[in-house]
Amino acid sequence: MATPLYVQIRERVKQDVAAGRLKPGERLPSSRQLARDLGVSRITTANAYAELEAEGIVEARAGSGTFVLPPRAPLPSISQPPAELSPPDWQRRLEGMRVHADRNRMLREAMRIHRSADVVPFGWARGDVRLFPIAELRRTIAEAIEEDGPAASLQYAPSEGHAPLRSAIAEYLRQLGVDARVDDVVITGGAQQAIDLIARALIRPGDRVAVEEPTYPGALEAFEAAGARLVGVPLDVDGMRVDALAAHLENGLRLVYTVPTFHNPTGAVMSAGRRRELVALAARHGVPVLEDDYLREVRFGSPIPPPIAAFDPAGNVIHVGSFSKSLLPALRLGYVVARGPLRERLALLKRIADAGSSALLQRALHRHLAGGVLQSHWRRTSRIYRRRQAAMAQALKRHFPSTAAWTSPHGGVVMWVRVPGISISDLFERAVPAGVSFGLGSAFFTEPADQPFMRLNFAAIDEGEIERGIAILGRLIAGGVSE
Amino acid sequence: MATPLYVQIRERVKQDVAAGRLKPGERLPSSRQLARDLGVSRITTANAYAELEAEGIVEARAGSGTFVLPPRAPLPSISQPPAELSPPDWQRRLEGMRVHADRNRMLREAMRIHRSADVVPFGWARGDVRLFPIAELRRTIAEAIEEDGPAASLQYAPSEGHAPLRSAIAEYLRQLGVDARVDDVVITGGAQQAIDLIARALIRPGDRVAVEEPTYPGALEAFEAAGARLVGVPLDVDGMRVDALAAHLENGLRLVYTVPTFHNPTGAVMSAGRRRELVALAARHGVPVLEDDYLREVRFGSPIPPPIAAFDPAGNVIHVGSFSKSLLPALRLGYVVARGPLRERLALLKRIADAGSSALLQRALHRHLAGGVLQSHWRRTSRIYRRRQAAMAQALKRHFPSTAAWTSPHGGVVMWVRVPGISISDLFERAVPAGVSFGLGSAFFTEPADQPFMRLNFAAIDEGEIERGIAILGRLIAGGVSE
Repeated sequence: MATPLYVQIRERVKQDVAAGRLKPGERLPSSRQLARDLGVSRITTANAYAELEAEGIVEARAGSGTFVLPPRAPLPSISQPPAELSPPDWQRRLEGMRVHADRNRMLREAMRIHRSADVVPFGWARGDVRLFPIAELRRTIAEAIEEDGPAASLQYAPSEGHAPLRSAIAEYLRQLGVDARVDDVVITGGAQQAIDLIARALIRPGDRVAVEEPTYPGALEAFEAAGARLVGVPLDVDGMRVDALAAHLENGLRLVYTVPTFHNPTGAVMSAGRRRELVALAARHGVPVLEDDYLREVRFGSPIPPPIAAFDPAGNVIHVGSFSKSLLPALRLGYVVARGPLRERLALLKRIADAGSSALLQRALHRHLAGGVLQSHWRRTSRIYRRRQAAMAQALKRHFPSTAAWTSPHGGVVMWVRVPGISISDLFERAVPAGVSFGLGSAFFTEPADQPFMRLNFAAIDEGEIERGIAILGRLIAGGVSE
Repeated sequence: MATPLYVQIRERVKQDVAAGRLKPGERLPSSRQLARDLGVSRITTANAYAELEAEGIVEARAGSGTFVLPPRAPLPSISQPPAELSPPDWQRRLEGMRVHADRNRMLREAMRIHRSADVVPFGWARGDVRLFPIAELRRTIAEAIEEDGPAASLQYAPSEGHAPLRSAIAEYLRQLGVDARVDDVVITGGAQQAIDLIARALIRPGDRVAVEEPTYPGALEAFEAAGARLVGVPLDVDGMRVDALAAHLENGLRLVYTVPTFHNPTGAVMSAGRRRELVALAARHGVPVLEDDYLREVRFGSPIPPPIAAFDPAGNVIHVGSFSKSLLPALRLGYVVARGPLRERLALLKRIADAGSSALLQRALHRHLAGGVLQSHWRRTSRIYRRRQAAMAQALKRHFPSTAAWTSPHGGVVMWVRVPGISISDLFERAVPAGVSFGLGSAFFTEPADQPFMRLNFAAIDEGEIERGIAILGRLIAGGVSE
């Protein structure tokens, strides 16, 4: 695919600044003028300028134009906190929030780096949206507006979600063996919002929440924000070690959080036996299980057991799903399935949180689900991701030291790599200037001390780039080890 | 505009059930079969069936079809709580949330009723999306995908928002006199999410929060959910009575919430003098002001003073805006402007809340803002809403008792009507079967006891419907008064 024009312009300005062809204080042509000179739309130049401003390379001054800023200090080290400004008095009480400061800084900085055009972004867990049939998306959006009418498609949707979409999701889950009715489904802004709403509904400060160690950091932050104390439970190739969970249940837990299918970050799939054991054990202790089934449909190996919720007759499993990884993050759509008072509370919290997700995108997604387009998209992406996963495994074998080890998941979008004997955060600091980013393993642990792990995305990166990026990492590791 | 096909089908089935032509237990044709019979798309029939299911008129049973359910009990009275199921043990601890149960029930039931196809929906504060140039929306969405490339437009946006959109909003606010920089702007899921994030960042259980009385109930619920104790401050035609606020500030407040422009529900506009006084007073007490500037651009009278944030050199005002009422609710986009540690906290909470708003809709909105389309849309809707507001004022004069009084705001989408001597909730119970809904005044108060007020939307309803609906209400009031 061609690089978008605004990216070309943005990178050109950055090169000019770096090479001294544009000096600090110098005024850029107006975005209107530049658009005219280059024969492109003004949005394109405005996009480029705005991103340069967000990166701190230029500054727009009201009424006078856009100016080159002096060069910034080099990227702050991700292991060092930035200098703090002295806050106004009433802002002091913000400091009580319990999110782990080191993890928060890592995630924030890492995200900024993954987004930079200059790196192979192994660090970002995502599917390849370039594979999605764009024409289909444009068609479903147009149909939602025309067939349903603007008064329905462009107004507020019901805060718990568009009924036909909820119904289609319930139907999909029933096919997987989950006893789900349309009323039990609440549409959310991706799995992240579902997890946050559940945390707000269930967790009080000091409550203990069990999580797989390592696990998805977005969930850790949502639980921490609600005041939870995190309890790490180890996992193996069959998923969460339910025997290890048992002891924690004896000591009292408010919630068990698990990612049973293509576990993030390791790719493990919880066996059917473990799923059954987990449901039985949690029910015996009267503790709910939050099943984060964020990605089930992109797979290239043996069949996946049904969701944990399918093993649960009693309604103790809260089931969360998403269309961000399997389809498009830009839809911002996921769901939570729950019953009874919790379902009522989640619907209320969704209304308080954002008054409901976009009617237009919900109606477009419903058309994708009902039209059968998704199934063929999932088959196609599964084939391509399988090749990329194999390419990454081969590149790791070629370029990484023989002491390194990695998982080879049969689905999902990431691999989990262990490189003993080096500092992974040091490697990260050297990798970014060399043009590669990756997921810092430490961010996935309840206590983010330096861990010998990295998470690598294979799904969204072409095979050639995978080879190139892994080769760079391999050289850096070899260099670091020989120092 | 024509009624969408799925609404026609839905209503036809409802009539057939009501008239006994379809009997309880009877199976409907499959949505596929019906689509074939009627020569419409299967989405259309699936939409109709799903909404019938959500309304409890039919039930889909996996693998066997869709069946007519027995008739439901009549609509539950909004002043009576529904019967509770006995919750599982671990669900018992949900009950601690502090949202006012009566208001919550009112809002939930009222929303369901406003959505029903059978009523003139005076109760819903909204603009008329039918006036929006749909072709423009389709064009900006297509351009965002094509010009920016799918890898940018369909992936995750930065959680604090798309930089060019943040920059355009900062620029817009600078033109209004607010000292806003791109970094200060966090994009949110409408004003509602902005308010909820601020509540989560600032409020601890027991904190006192001052609000205009009456005010927007979505804000009341967000503050209550965070544990606030609400303190009502009266308002007059010049907005919040700052003199009345002073006493509460002496007793300690965590936050002052105000809707200074086209106040919801009264339509009042806070004068420039009051704005200046409020900023000075709050700063003297070291208390932040949350300015909910949800709708500034749809106006048809004298000029509006600048935002309160423009009177504030010290960064004590947290400014919130939205595109839901002035443009399209389905975008689910708004923003909050804040500085210092609060800004950092809001960005973090946005990441935890939903990992960021849709990249696609943000890029489309940026194109609307940059393209100058919005300005002409605002001018056009202002002209039309002015006529509808006048039509409603005339209808009220014709059909309401002479003891009734109402505000005549010079902008916004709603009017506030006082009808003394009757029970407004009784009127509501009688109005819905007669084909009219309205906003129950009590829902806008910190303590939702029966109040002699109703809120009426004029913006989204055609003049003929306004006349018809107000005439019905007038007859019901006359009937009730004469009893």
